[in-house]
Amino acid sequence: MKDFVQCVPTRFVFGRGTERQAGQQVRDFGGTKALIVYGGGSAVRSGLIDRVARSLDEAGVASVCLGGVQPNPRDTLVYRGIELARREGVDFILAVGGGSVIDTSKAIAHGLCYDGDFWDFFCGKARPERTTPFGAVLTMSAAGSESSNSCVITQESTKTKRGVRSELNRPRFAIMNPELAMTLPPYQIACGATDILAHIMERYFTCEAEVDLTDRLCEGAMQAVIRAARIAVKQPDSYDAQAQLMWGSTIAHNDTLGIGRVQDWGSHQIEHELSALYDVPHGAGLAVVFPAWMRYHMHKNVMRFAQFAVRVYGCAMDFEHPEATALRGIEAHEAFLRDIGMPLTLSELGARAEDIPALAAHTKKTNPDGTTGGVFPMTPEDIEAILRIADR
Amino acid sequence: MKDFVQCVPTRFVFGRGTERQAGQQVRDFGGTKALIVYGGGSAVRSGLIDRVARSLDEAGVASVCLGGVQPNPRDTLVYRGIELARREGVDFILAVGGGSVIDTSKAIAHGLCYDGDFWDFFCGKARPERTTPFGAVLTMSAAGSESSNSCVITQESTKTKRGVRSELNRPRFAIMNPELAMTLPPYQIACGATDILAHIMERYFTCEAEVDLTDRLCEGAMQAVIRAARIAVKQPDSYDAQAQLMWGSTIAHNDTLGIGRVQDWGSHQIEHELSALYDVPHGAGLAVVFPAWMRYHMHKNVMRFAQFAVRVYGCAMDFEHPEATALRGIEAHEAFLRDIGMPLTLSELGARAEDIPALAAHTKKTNPDGTTGGVFPMTPEDIEAILRIADR
Repeated sequence: MKDFVQCVPTRFVFGRGTERQAGQQVRDFGGTKALIVYGGGSAVRSGLIDRVARSLDEAGVASVCLGGVQPNPRDTLVYRGIELARREGVDFILAVGGGSVIDTSKAIAHGLCYDGDFWDFFCGKARPERTTPFGAVLTMSAAGSESSNSCVITQESTKTKRGVRSELNRPRFAIMNPELAMTLPPYQIACGATDILAHIMERYFTCEAEVDLTDRLCEGAMQAVIRAARIAVKQPDSYDAQAQLMWGSTIAHNDTLGIGRVQDWGSHQIEHELSALYDVPHGAGLAVVFPAWMRYHMHKNVMRFAQFAVRVYGCAMDFEHPEATALRGIEAHEAFLRDIGMPLTLSELGARAEDIPALAAHTKKTNPDGTTGGVFPMTPEDIEAILRIADR
Repeated sequence: MKDFVQCVPTRFVFGRGTERQAGQQVRDFGGTKALIVYGGGSAVRSGLIDRVARSLDEAGVASVCLGGVQPNPRDTLVYRGIELARREGVDFILAVGGGSVIDTSKAIAHGLCYDGDFWDFFCGKARPERTTPFGAVLTMSAAGSESSNSCVITQESTKTKRGVRSELNRPRFAIMNPELAMTLPPYQIACGATDILAHIMERYFTCEAEVDLTDRLCEGAMQAVIRAARIAVKQPDSYDAQAQLMWGSTIAHNDTLGIGRVQDWGSHQIEHELSALYDVPHGAGLAVVFPAWMRYHMHKNVMRFAQFAVRVYGCAMDFEHPEATALRGIEAHEAFLRDIGMPLTLSELGARAEDIPALAAHTKKTNPDGTTGGVFPMTPEDIEAILRIADR
């Protein structure tokens, strides 16, 4: 178990109708004029933006709106948001949406306090040193951005998707009403569940010894998310399933499940290339990449992949052939992804085999030696091989 | 799943030698003069207090010491601490020890900001509304006070042990070095592990439906703590086992495992009577009370007790006789407690059968109707019956 420092100061307000507490929460954290950031028209049509704005108004908080956040959120809207917030004298950023909206809000919050180009934080030229207070009203269970230290933005002109990790990325509060996720299409719910599981799995497949406690927590969370996802894609109006997914999305990515471990994140880096180039949902990309990544790497730590198979999917341990058990676990995970309607191949994603070398070459090198990923560092050749497995 | 609000803003600094960061942490939270609170002479003899004081000194933080905290910490020392802190112009309270030391520090921190008698908070006359910043250097894994919202103090003159829950009870930081727990006697390690498990079990045995995610997290945490406890009592110098226990103590009691659930806490209330009257370790008292509580109540929710048996202790499910499985789980838990050297009967604790009616009558009534406990509310007669089961 590795040493760690962890602090998740976000206040979670969880339950039915909690979006009506948005105004009070913004007030609690000193906001007097908020920029409400949201995505498409559905948040307006459903009346959610109205409810939130009214709540702010009742709490004496002025507000101005910025809609139009797209999935795989773009730098262009971040620039517009910073400009609008500056012009309007905003002192609080309130995200109303999922991960894309929250990440856009984080980038606006940081950029508002910075004299240079906010993209400096994403291309490694600068580190955010302060930010504008921001909070979130969550509408879907996926990215975990509502309390994570992560923020991912795509530079539209270069199709470069990059993330920045900073403790400043943790919102002051996260309002979480699982009812708001009930109107999502099943495909989007499934993409979210896949993302949640990937966040846990990037932490789970570690080479760090003696991490039994977090192993067990990861396994428990994965079991619960898998169960809830199967229910929610069939019955999106199941409050209970949506509640498990929503809280699952949060703990999957705020490092409750990751402390003391070497983590990987190679699959995420590969997926960022897919969603930047083809603009596919992040969860769908992960459904294609992660099983291929598992098949490619399982032989390097067979017992851990067998443990995953036995403890998460209830596979019987083949003590004579642990690698057979490990493979059963990957197959079980693929079967689950199929069950909830996820793609498993590059072609289902609309990706082209001829792009594979470029995708592999463009994947962010996260290590000083030019490799990618923490547990199993990968060269571009490894990444290419993984994408070829996904090209089935 | 119930609605909830949760916020654990404590900064965790976990790993070898982390006590040397105490000064920097106190500085980070604005402290200029700290009251260092500790227990017996071992913290002095081991050099720990010296290391912490030197770290403060190097960070430019002045300090004054208050030793002598006893297990089941007393109001008398809290009064002395408040007086000393006031006289010395202290602006930060730094606990160096386990739950008793941290709880004493919390009570001093609250009392220092309060014009009346600090006991007002514990007898229900007042609620703490502000506090002095405080932090902890943890030396044993048990109470979880290093990030819980709980604080328990015993009024010496009346032998009344009472707790207060408040978000103000969460420390600013918790420095957690598992090495510091290696010098504890195995009995104390076992008491700590029993307390950790009890904190999880008070949350686990709920009547709330659809709490699959926290169920699974509780089960995983219990499995890891049970495994680590077995190792740590035999090899107290196992860093890995101590690390699992130390992080386990934290997440067991900061509500990571309790959100959205009806919790019980009846066993804790009964145990408070035992440790107040006989001055036995809290963990030892819980080892006696909890299995008796389980045996008394299991018939009211057989399937949950069976789930505990199967998922935590790996018992085979007897589908024809779930109650037999439930009982196997309780027996497995008793066998574990025995294995780590815990008492299971009142007499092993030095308690007297003739005190049972008075113990039952004195147990804090936590509900408006005069009953005790959240999931299975108990009358004094129920409590008496439970204590009779423990009188075996």
